[in-house]
Amino acid sequence: MNSALKQHIEKITPLTDAEFEYVSSMFSSKKLKKHQFLVQEDSEVHNEYWVVKGLLKAYHTDEDGKIHILQFAMEDWWITDFQAYMNCTPATIAIDCIEDCELLVLSRDNKEKLCNELHSIANFFRKKSNVGYVALQQRILLLLNKNPQERYNRLFKLNPKLLQRLPKTLLASYLGVSRETLSRLSHP
Amino acid sequence: MNSALKQHIEKITPLTDAEFEYVSSMFSSKKLKKHQFLVQEDSEVHNEYWVVKGLLKAYHTDEDGKIHILQFAMEDWWITDFQAYMNCTPATIAIDCIEDCELLVLSRDNKEKLCNELHSIANFFRKKSNVGYVALQQRILLLLNKNPQERYNRLFKLNPKLLQRLPKTLLASYLGVSRETLSRLSHP
Repeated sequence: MNSALKQHIEKITPLTDAEFEYVSSMFSSKKLKKHQFLVQEDSEVHNEYWVVKGLLKAYHTDEDGKIHILQFAMEDWWITDFQAYMNCTPATIAIDCIEDCELLVLSRDNKEKLCNELHSIANFFRKKSNVGYVALQQRILLLLNKNPQERYNRLFKLNPKLLQRLPKTLLASYLGVSRETLSRLSHP
Repeated sequence: MNSALKQHIEKITPLTDAEFEYVSSMFSSKKLKKHQFLVQEDSEVHNEYWVVKGLLKAYHTDEDGKIHILQFAMEDWWITDFQAYMNCTPATIAIDCIEDCELLVLSRDNKEKLCNELHSIANFFRKKSNVGYVALQQRILLLLNKNPQERYNRLFKLNPKLLQRLPKTLLASYLGVSRETLSRLSHP
């Protein structure tokens, strides 16, 4: 049993110990070292992952070999290539570890089983998905805003802890600015 | 009863006639003319909307008065300011009608009631939210890709019907290019 996972779920919905034990039995665990891949482009994606410890990045590599960061994930966040996971299509993004990571793994089949068996878990994942949806909308507004300082301020406001842990190169990439531009931005 | 809504829900989950009648009773309907607002910035957002007929845009206006399009919605799509709707905060985007619109309105309270009472509806909205999440990820990859022709091709592949109905000015804005650049792009 992972008490952090129980706390994570109970932020949204209460579970009895027996229910949580059952939910917990549907997860496996996985450890990865810094720089290891969780998902590689073109691979099959059968799982989503909840971060117990560590930091990861999901990104697309364009034809010129330049990487475009879709999202980061740290403790208490979920990550996978959701498109590939949902549609059973090959991954179009890669996910690798910025730090050593400990993850809990939930397969598509186990997730559907849980959501069909436990009404509270269906509602938990519905609400988590809504939160993720809104986070992506924020990310889009961040991308649409052409002023790098405002993008930086917005990211700082949304995720001050994330900002402290990110290597500057990745932060610059996420904000879509050069390292030089990043160094000229004032700390909010 | 709206048979299109029943079909829409039953793409994901079967409902008995009695269940659908109950679900349907939780919606009200709304008609808006072209150019009318569905959501204005800073207003309260208590509802989400399912498009029976018409086309809308959700957008943010920056300090220079320039609009940045977050999403479009046409028949069979859901739209609202999801951040404001979920978090009970003032709207940070506006939504208005590109064409005359007929909408079905679902309040936050009625949605939660339905999701708590009907397991199938909780799963329906969970899956719809997942689909929306993936669509936003696609939108982000579209924004990150700096090649306008590829962005155009990707949008065409995702939504050929939408593309035909959009005024060229809005299409250019969505792709983040000028009208001149748009006119030079080749039709996929």
